[in-house]
Amino acid sequence: MRFFDFRVRPPFKGFLSMVMYSQPARRNGFTRNLKFEPSQAAETQSVDAMIAEMKASNVERALVVGRNSGALGSIDNGEVAEFVGMHPDRFVGAASVDVTERKRAVQQIDDAIKAGFKAINIEPGACATPMFTDDRRLYPIYAHCEDRKVPVIIMTGGNAGPDLNYTHPALLDRVLADFPTLKVVCSHGNWPWVTEILHVAFRRSNLYVSPDMYLPNMPGMDDYVKAADGFLADRFLYASSFPFCPVKDYAEWFSKLPIRPESMEKVGYRNAMNLLGMS
Amino acid sequence: MRFFDFRVRPPFKGFLSMVMYSQPARRNGFTRNLKFEPSQAAETQSVDAMIAEMKASNVERALVVGRNSGALGSIDNGEVAEFVGMHPDRFVGAASVDVTERKRAVQQIDDAIKAGFKAINIEPGACATPMFTDDRRLYPIYAHCEDRKVPVIIMTGGNAGPDLNYTHPALLDRVLADFPTLKVVCSHGNWPWVTEILHVAFRRSNLYVSPDMYLPNMPGMDDYVKAADGFLADRFLYASSFPFCPVKDYAEWFSKLPIRPESMEKVGYRNAMNLLGMS
Amino acid sequence: MRFFDFRVRPPFKGFLSMVMYSQPARRNGFTRNLKFEPSQAAETQSVDAMIAEMKASNVERALVVGRNSGALGSIDNGEVAEFVGMHPDRFVGAASVDVTERKRAVQQIDDAIKAGFKAINIEPGACATPMFTDDRRLYPIYAHCEDRKVPVIIMTGGNAGPDLNYTHPALLDRVLADFPTLKVVCSHGNWPWVTEILHVAFRRSNLYVSPDMYLPNMPGMDDYVKAADGFLADRFLYASSFPFCPVKDYAEWFSKLPIRPESMEKVGYRNAMNLLGMS
Repeated sequence: MRFFDFRVRPPFKGFLSMVMYSQPARRNGFTRNLKFEPSQAAETQSVDAMIAEMKASNVERALVVGRNSGALGSIDNGEVAEFVGMHPDRFVGAASVDVTERKRAVQQIDDAIKAGFKAINIEPGACATPMFTDDRRLYPIYAHCEDRKVPVIIMTGGNAGPDLNYTHPALLDRVLADFPTLKVVCSHGNWPWVTEILHVAFRRSNLYVSPDMYLPNMPGMDDYVKAADGFLADRFLYASSFPFCPVKDYAEWFSKLPIRPESMEKVGYRNAMNLLGMS
Repeated sequence: MRFFDFRVRPPFKGFLSMVMYSQPARRNGFTRNLKFEPSQAAETQSVDAMIAEMKASNVERALVVGRNSGALGSIDNGEVAEFVGMHPDRFVGAASVDVTERKRAVQQIDDAIKAGFKAINIEPGACATPMFTDDRRLYPIYAHCEDRKVPVIIMTGGNAGPDLNYTHPALLDRVLADFPTLKVVCSHGNWPWVTEILHVAFRRSNLYVSPDMYLPNMPGMDDYVKAADGFLADRFLYASSFPFCPVKDYAEWFSKLPIRPESMEKVGYRNAMNLLGMS
Repeated sequence: MRFFDFRVRPPFKGFLSMVMYSQPARRNGFTRNLKFEPSQAAETQSVDAMIAEMKASNVERALVVGRNSGALGSIDNGEVAEFVGMHPDRFVGAASVDVTERKRAVQQIDDAIKAGFKAINIEPGACATPMFTDDRRLYPIYAHCEDRKVPVIIMTGGNAGPDLNYTHPALLDRVLADFPTLKVVCSHGNWPWVTEILHVAFRRSNLYVSPDMYLPNMPGMDDYVKAADGFLADRFLYASSFPFCPVKDYAEWFSKLPIRPESMEKVGYRNAMNLLGMS
């Protein structure tokens, strides 16, 4: 069993100023609510320890997902690229764009693709003035990503906006229908709308679902897992959301889920490789 | 154990031009996602094979549900009546009406009742211009059905409209309250809104729930099944959605669900008979 | 194992004129749908029998929750206080206020606190003209309760309003964010929105969840129970909703749930004591 962890934020430069590192007590409360113990790599802010966790649990690759968010902080794409460049066999980058300025966002997307980023990450609900996922201002950006054939990761679950309406799966349902060849990853799996997002995934073959840190021992978990071993086997993506979950303990926990080996290889590794166009 | 299958579309005349028969690969993908193998009766478009499946699995009766839908195609009620007339001991018909023209719809309902149809089927979310289930234009039609004491089947789950908002159970909650003696069947069981529609069913005794093809191995299945053996034992309706699920394999799969025999006789057979006024 | 039952309505004065006592057949149908047999204390309208049930099942204390509702009836706070005064070691009172008149509501809250009530109960969806939980007219009342440091119980689940939209957890999500130090109990646990309200509880630490009569054998039960033994262990509240569920049978049923002893003591007893400021 091997893993491609689709959402990690290493303890590096801009990430260190985000709440996930600057407020360890808050983060650890979160971790323990998921029934994990905090990762030493997170506690000591050690990239080496993080990589050691990866090696110890067959996490062969990981996607470093940046952030460009009025509410949750930002990291420069250059720093993400710098980190990935230091570990090219192990890490891949997702570039983040500021969706509040259309023309700049489009430029950032083009720059990111040139710089080797494999996906674009946006968090519309975490803008200084939050946007819904189907906000019309996002449509030119979706169109551009569809044209450029680059997958978009959208934070559409958990605390993705000021209230629960921001994660409503109908928002994404419309976007997926309006851009039928745009591949979209819903990070946080649109949790807590579990059956609803699984319906959208059943219906829209351009949706990839990654419940990441909202999976372990959380309400609705069993339905995500059954889908991962069923109709969603080709579009479920494994992710620890490190530093919220420990890379190694998450992998060991995930390994024991009732998912058949042929599905496990897909959801744990192969789907991510395929989606990012890696061989 | 015997069954009344509350939703079948035999391979006959107008049905054959619908996507469910004209695009077999698409349909079979659906079937396999539910973890069934495609029915030979569907593959070979054989009514005889379909009836053989019914006989082999104690499916004594089935409701042939037509369609009158701008988006999903139509079959003439006359063809449904013709088919039922050829197998009067085995099949019963549900007539479909075009809800976009009130006066004609009312006429179609009266004609259908005279012609021996036992239920009216509508699909407001699949109109050329989709309607919500509580659209005011539907209210005269609901009133007419309530006055005529004919049950209405509404497609209110799955891909019933252009997005997930069209299946929101609050829409039906209001209709059920506004027409308290109108008996309504929610076909597709308002899936994926599983707990929510079960709440509505708990609250509104004029709702009948039929998850049909969105039951097998789908998110939320266990809650549907528990309700079928609990508070919903008198108002759950068994249905295969043939040709999406094989008549026989669905029956065999359903037979093994943890439903006590006294409830199984109701949800599998008796509720349908009672609802349609058959003895 | 001992219990603090967070929602009981004894067969006393004003309660007896409410539907829960005046229409026993309707209530008993409800009880049986939850797979309980009706309580003899409810059937015979005997306070002594109710207290005997409590003693027989280690229900040491109970919160008597009044009602001031255009749609569901009312009991005078004075009668609740009178009942509690007759059994001060066993019962505690929650006062109800009429939210349709702001100034009077604020006065009722102040009066209630002086009279020894430990919580304020409101049912906005059951006003003669129903209000949503985030109705702006409620905001001065929420502000007053936050200032007075008195917890508010809001009926936000089940049949709390004319349709399912009235229990949508996003309504409460906003209120909890806007009044971050106001402690709110969602009675009926926002059922059927199970995963959604658990998300809100995960996110907002000022929410207490009490599914009460919508827990036993109901859709979503397992997720409530897992949360009660997990991240919600300090904020889940045990409640029978007597007379809808029998005090004793509910306690015996609850005792067998897969909740570890240390969590059981909290959710069954200690959380209620802490929330009400009792030692």
